[in-house]
Amino acid sequence: MTNNAFTALMAHMHEAVALSQISGLLGWDQETTMARGSANQRAEWQSALQATIHAKRTDPKVGDWLAAIDPAELDPIEAANIRVISREYERQSRVPTDLAREIARVTSAAQGEWAEARAAGDFAAFQGTLAKVVDLRRQEAAALANGGDLYDALLGEYEPGMQAVELDRLFAGLRRGLVDLREGIGQSSVEIPDIEGRFSQDQQMLIARELADVFGYDWNRGRLDLAVHPFSSGSGDDVRITTRVAEQDPFNCFYSTIHEVGHAVYEQNIDPRHGLTVLGTGASMGVHESQSRIFENQLGRSRAFTGFLFQRMQAVFGDFGIPDAETFYHVVNKLRRGYIRTDADEVQYNLHVLLRYDLERKLIAGTLDVADLQDAWNQRFEQDFGYAVDSVQNGVLQDVHWPVGLIGYFPTYTLGNIYAGELYASLQDDLPTLDSDLAKGDTKEALVWLKEKIHRHGGTYEPRDLIERAVGHAPSEAPLLDYITRKFGDIYQL
Amino acid sequence: MTNNAFTALMAHMHEAVALSQISGLLGWDQETTMARGSANQRAEWQSALQATIHAKRTDPKVGDWLAAIDPAELDPIEAANIRVISREYERQSRVPTDLAREIARVTSAAQGEWAEARAAGDFAAFQGTLAKVVDLRRQEAAALANGGDLYDALLGEYEPGMQAVELDRLFAGLRRGLVDLREGIGQSSVEIPDIEGRFSQDQQMLIARELADVFGYDWNRGRLDLAVHPFSSGSGDDVRITTRVAEQDPFNCFYSTIHEVGHAVYEQNIDPRHGLTVLGTGASMGVHESQSRIFENQLGRSRAFTGFLFQRMQAVFGDFGIPDAETFYHVVNKLRRGYIRTDADEVQYNLHVLLRYDLERKLIAGTLDVADLQDAWNQRFEQDFGYAVDSVQNGVLQDVHWPVGLIGYFPTYTLGNIYAGELYASLQDDLPTLDSDLAKGDTKEALVWLKEKIHRHGGTYEPRDLIERAVGHAPSEAPLLDYITRKFGDIYQL
Repeated sequence: MTNNAFTALMAHMHEAVALSQISGLLGWDQETTMARGSANQRAEWQSALQATIHAKRTDPKVGDWLAAIDPAELDPIEAANIRVISREYERQSRVPTDLAREIARVTSAAQGEWAEARAAGDFAAFQGTLAKVVDLRRQEAAALANGGDLYDALLGEYEPGMQAVELDRLFAGLRRGLVDLREGIGQSSVEIPDIEGRFSQDQQMLIARELADVFGYDWNRGRLDLAVHPFSSGSGDDVRITTRVAEQDPFNCFYSTIHEVGHAVYEQNIDPRHGLTVLGTGASMGVHESQSRIFENQLGRSRAFTGFLFQRMQAVFGDFGIPDAETFYHVVNKLRRGYIRTDADEVQYNLHVLLRYDLERKLIAGTLDVADLQDAWNQRFEQDFGYAVDSVQNGVLQDVHWPVGLIGYFPTYTLGNIYAGELYASLQDDLPTLDSDLAKGDTKEALVWLKEKIHRHGGTYEPRDLIERAVGHAPSEAPLLDYITRKFGDIYQL
Repeated sequence: MTNNAFTALMAHMHEAVALSQISGLLGWDQETTMARGSANQRAEWQSALQATIHAKRTDPKVGDWLAAIDPAELDPIEAANIRVISREYERQSRVPTDLAREIARVTSAAQGEWAEARAAGDFAAFQGTLAKVVDLRRQEAAALANGGDLYDALLGEYEPGMQAVELDRLFAGLRRGLVDLREGIGQSSVEIPDIEGRFSQDQQMLIARELADVFGYDWNRGRLDLAVHPFSSGSGDDVRITTRVAEQDPFNCFYSTIHEVGHAVYEQNIDPRHGLTVLGTGASMGVHESQSRIFENQLGRSRAFTGFLFQRMQAVFGDFGIPDAETFYHVVNKLRRGYIRTDADEVQYNLHVLLRYDLERKLIAGTLDVADLQDAWNQRFEQDFGYAVDSVQNGVLQDVHWPVGLIGYFPTYTLGNIYAGELYASLQDDLPTLDSDLAKGDTKEALVWLKEKIHRHGGTYEPRDLIERAVGHAPSEAPLLDYITRKFGDIYQL
């Protein structure tokens, strides 16, 4: 029975996975290629496709097949497939169809309302809708939690196996350490110049393509385009990346590219045996972010690699006003006062995330009202950043996540940084030539290591198990905090 | 009952139509955007999507709903929806699943084998596969025909309601007339120069975009890209066109663009009420081709419009060696000795199609063996064109249609030209200012006429009914033959 049921289930999931990947391509097309006037029709397409995928994933036959399979007869990869399929089937089956449809309807409309409220700088105009979104997600959490913790139920969608109690443990020390470091840097007398001048789009894209090469992107199975908000999209043999160009800030283009290449190379490096199965994508949002961040920061913003980038920029742009590689390294890593998470440096980025995490936990716990969210945001921001939010666009209305119902998602950003901290420490131990390689723009050995430890496995292991197998111990925030503290202590002479 | 069943059926078909449109976008992406290494995964996607669409279209619930609907209770648009849905449901239900799967498998592999055989110039290498394709399509035709004519059963997929006996009537006089005209032109002493020089891609695309504007393409709901073989793709609010650029032959780009804009504007002009229903696309392949051909030929290659194009080319390219608009008109319409259907002029194009039609009818009737196909092709070609095929790439291996199983499709090209001939005669009667408008690059009134008579209706009427409503009588080949004979008799002073 196991054999027949397993084969039938895998064939069924093969179609479901293919349809999900198609949905991803529609999203890519929408952000890069589609004409504006096609938006309503595209929404209809996505809605029809999602309904079809949902019907496939919750097909009662899936339950029958799962019941007919004896896990003892499966090899480890087969068992991992069943683990992921079961989890998804149970999650989706627990949420009443009407609730799922209502969430889809409200969050779809909410995105436009949020954009309008943000443009108008008017949180009150969006407050009612956001309260509805939070309420619906709390209902969903209750359905999913089955008596357990509501926030954990939501978190599990993005980071399977993770719990808020564990996040609290990882995040507490990190926050203290980062706030201390930020305050210390504020007292530093080190002055770092800014980059100045104009850097043409063609020349920036020339370097962006080189950077994608350097970090192992496979052009034969993807492409690079421009988008308003850079992203990576796809799995297996079709993984596309986007970047953006600001003429006065080439680092925006370069580091967005490296970040997205981190996501993309992870997907491209997954063992082809997992193609079109539920294991054929990254293990979790946190693990995904660990790859984009280690590419972007630990590797890409290292002294060694910025030395290489400095040479490449000089070759393309000539003298652009930065006198030497060491100054360039400082410029790339300079701390700036700012309000926007996505623009933040390594020191402040996680403070942004932890703020959102604490607030959304309270929203889901019911201990914070949406009516009080803006005040809570502003108060916490001033506490951790040392200055006040100057506008709601730079405050509680800056991210699209909550409006579209992504609650339980934010902490995976910082979790990704914590994983990246662990992986980087191990990588340095295992690869003594890392810095001399990076100084030559050579990431080959580092990529071999990451592919072996992380990429090739796809979703075979639970995220935490995957990291633990890679580094030899349960993940802790210490290596990340240690890395950031040393790096910026050195730059700012603390 | 009718009301509930109709509503449920329309919601079901809404999803099926959306999924079909998504499949179209995947095809567009594959031809314009996708990286080479993504091809296998894309084939898996299409296969999963097609299986899902097929399951939806043949869902027994569709049969139940259709049975529960009383046509007497429907308004004309509702009845038209039911007409098209029933026809498709019956067609798809008649073909055994195993046969459909075998056809998909064989034709999918056959495309690659055909490309290899064509590259090698070796018909014998492909003959076995083609025989298999023909055999499978004959089996399908037998399943569809239900005792009726086999070829009609296949033709009905592309041109609902049309029969071979009617095509024979329309095509017989056309062939005689065109062969006579071609022979007459062969005797003409008129000498027409060729266009010479190099025309840059950027400048060609500048004019191509202008031509798309001139012919009413809505950029807000589509886009123009390059592809190896130009095509138009999509329906409703997302209709994309492609063209190609050959530096020495700007007409290739310009007239490919106008042709594809003809297809695209037809789709863009369909009444939005038909959006995401089975009526929300062109009435048939023949009617579709009538729009691309009337745009390209009757309008685009007219003396009036080429006068406008001549000015635009002079503005962009400067003096390009053609002395005046009348000479330019002759250059655009010059007859050339050639072997390839897609490169053929208005006189010879339909001779190419009629050759294929007659041969494929015999293949399906079982009166011609695939083993004898190459000889039959070469013999007929020499008879109608007056010179011999010089290579199999220029002969029976030139088109992808038969390898991918498209039998019954070719005649819709000539049917489209016949419809275009009828529509052009009516348009001239109704719009006395047509030539003076076209001379200014103004197609507004012509487009209003075509939208009113043809475009807006989508699939509401059977193709022949649609044309008859538009021109006031049953379609005949006479207006097309008359138009071609006059136009080329004038140019070649016969």
